[in-house]
Amino acid sequence: MKPVNLKTLAQELNLSVATVSRALNDRFEISQPTKDRVLRLAAQRNYLPNPHASSLRRSQSKTIGVVIPEVANHFFALAINGIEEVARLNDYHVLIYLTHDDDQREAAIVRLLASGRVDGVLLSGVGTSRQLTHLNLLLERHIPLVFFDRVYEGLATATVTTDDYASGYQATRHLLEAGCRTIAHLTLSPTISICQRRRQGYQAALREFGLSPDKELLLEAKNEGPANERAIEALLRRRRDIDGIFTAVESLAMSSYQVCQNLGLRIPTDIKIISFSNSATAALLLPPLTTITQPAHAIGKAAAEIIFQGISKNCPPSPTQSLELKSELFARASSAATPSLGRR
Amino acid sequence: MKPVNLKTLAQELNLSVATVSRALNDRFEISQPTKDRVLRLAAQRNYLPNPHASSLRRSQSKTIGVVIPEVANHFFALAINGIEEVARLNDYHVLIYLTHDDDQREAAIVRLLASGRVDGVLLSGVGTSRQLTHLNLLLERHIPLVFFDRVYEGLATATVTTDDYASGYQATRHLLEAGCRTIAHLTLSPTISICQRRRQGYQAALREFGLSPDKELLLEAKNEGPANERAIEALLRRRRDIDGIFTAVESLAMSSYQVCQNLGLRIPTDIKIISFSNSATAALLLPPLTTITQPAHAIGKAAAEIIFQGISKNCPPSPTQSLELKSELFARASSAATPSLGRR
Repeated sequence: MKPVNLKTLAQELNLSVATVSRALNDRFEISQPTKDRVLRLAAQRNYLPNPHASSLRRSQSKTIGVVIPEVANHFFALAINGIEEVARLNDYHVLIYLTHDDDQREAAIVRLLASGRVDGVLLSGVGTSRQLTHLNLLLERHIPLVFFDRVYEGLATATVTTDDYASGYQATRHLLEAGCRTIAHLTLSPTISICQRRRQGYQAALREFGLSPDKELLLEAKNEGPANERAIEALLRRRRDIDGIFTAVESLAMSSYQVCQNLGLRIPTDIKIISFSNSATAALLLPPLTTITQPAHAIGKAAAEIIFQGISKNCPPSPTQSLELKSELFARASSAATPSLGRR
Repeated sequence: MKPVNLKTLAQELNLSVATVSRALNDRFEISQPTKDRVLRLAAQRNYLPNPHASSLRRSQSKTIGVVIPEVANHFFALAINGIEEVARLNDYHVLIYLTHDDDQREAAIVRLLASGRVDGVLLSGVGTSRQLTHLNLLLERHIPLVFFDRVYEGLATATVTTDDYASGYQATRHLLEAGCRTIAHLTLSPTISICQRRRQGYQAALREFGLSPDKELLLEAKNEGPANERAIEALLRRRRDIDGIFTAVESLAMSSYQVCQNLGLRIPTDIKIISFSNSATAALLLPPLTTITQPAHAIGKAAAEIIFQGISKNCPPSPTQSLELKSELFARASSAATPSLGRR
């Protein structure tokens, strides 16, 4: 009797070997009737897959890769905890790769991951390049990819984000209601998805209060402390009418505190500050910092759950699985309304 | 003519195939005269190594693994930056693995790394287990291993640490000189190398001031916020004579600040605090926190340099390469001498 293998099954069913293989692997692109036909014949013929070949084909490295811009950021630290919680339940290892906000490093890391080192990739993008070739490589190779927080538009996969536009609006409105009229916005590159949306929210709130966004009040910083402090100090010296600061990332709030300390500016009397931040120490600062806090742990968990659905069902995550979670505003002393306002 | 390969070279030299291979790979365990004999004959016979086999043998994954207990800690964030700086110069990737202070996770990760996934391992140990089997596996397989910060005793490899005993002594002495007489010490498990030495320094300083270490003042915490806050609060309620706190890790200082805020204790009037910390926000807290700050970036850099020496010379790091760097005390308001002291 001829040995039963993929080829003999395919011949008997008048299907291609690839289709039979995919049907046996329960791949999403094969219809249920075809899967049923293949499985029925495989059972009749006592077909046994070569376990080694199967393991190679599915590349079950039992590892997922997490690619993030930086590690000294409480958002990513908490998101990783959420990811690892889900990975542990699935008996998977988590590898963390840092891009240091460098798009070429991101591309190199993703190409490495596309070579089959991991079963799925969770990525928070650098976002400064419009070149998505490296990410398309993952999709082509059917390696499940989920974006979290910092996403790239135009790729057919799932994303887990927060309501950045609404939060940017809410943060700015909070300062406006506390009496601020000249609000600086400190952010990173406008090509980063979250920064773009937070800025749009900021502009919308200003307009609602009859103020027109002023380009001079926008500071695009790098993720680098000393240079940022110099830039913030220059801005505050140049524009003595600034009475509020809304920062899009945690590190820029810390730089702003440092500059205010250096310049002898009192928070919140002279200037009010609100920031996106997941730092547990926000409430312990002098003065306690008002924050927009993202559900970082839940974001990591949700993104990991989508990846493991993709891995277990052998089906790449789809844009329809995307989630948007809500951030929360914690009002503290740094943005409190004060009898007299500003340094004018 | 017979093809020239490792076997024919070995036969002609009357050496084993393994010895010839190691000599060609410039391995440390082969003597220079033997290396010279092998290289001379290989040149005469125009021996060309199989490039693919060679790459497998040396397992040049162009990747090093960094295994750390947690990521939400400024020390590790900065150390990773130092490691990546050196890795970049060597054109290497860095993989980060988190053990979450769980020794079984550490063992599983190290076994995974020992399977040849990386060319070298930098490890800051969980330190709660005395089982070192998993680490011996790395040494047996000649995968270069360097410990940084949290080390395991009794393994023949290089370590990069700081002067934890001297720093623990200095921190405690600083509080004693500021007038404290009942100093609580908050730390993690005493099996963690750095915690043990910091505690010994604390005890030495107390004795020098004629005080005997009091077990009740020692709190062994876990790396877990809410439970730590409850334990610190219970300690401060139980021992109303505590007038100083020395914490061995950053997160315990933050928990202490939170508890003091909850209990209405004024820092530094009622209680003074000093902590090991690499947080850039220490100076921005209410009040600014006195810290012992480790040269985290330099530690990461030094550890990575030792690993790359090992990788490039094909020679495991040796204990003689070990380094001890110095930490620095930054005195701030949280430990300032005050006219009246304590809550008694």
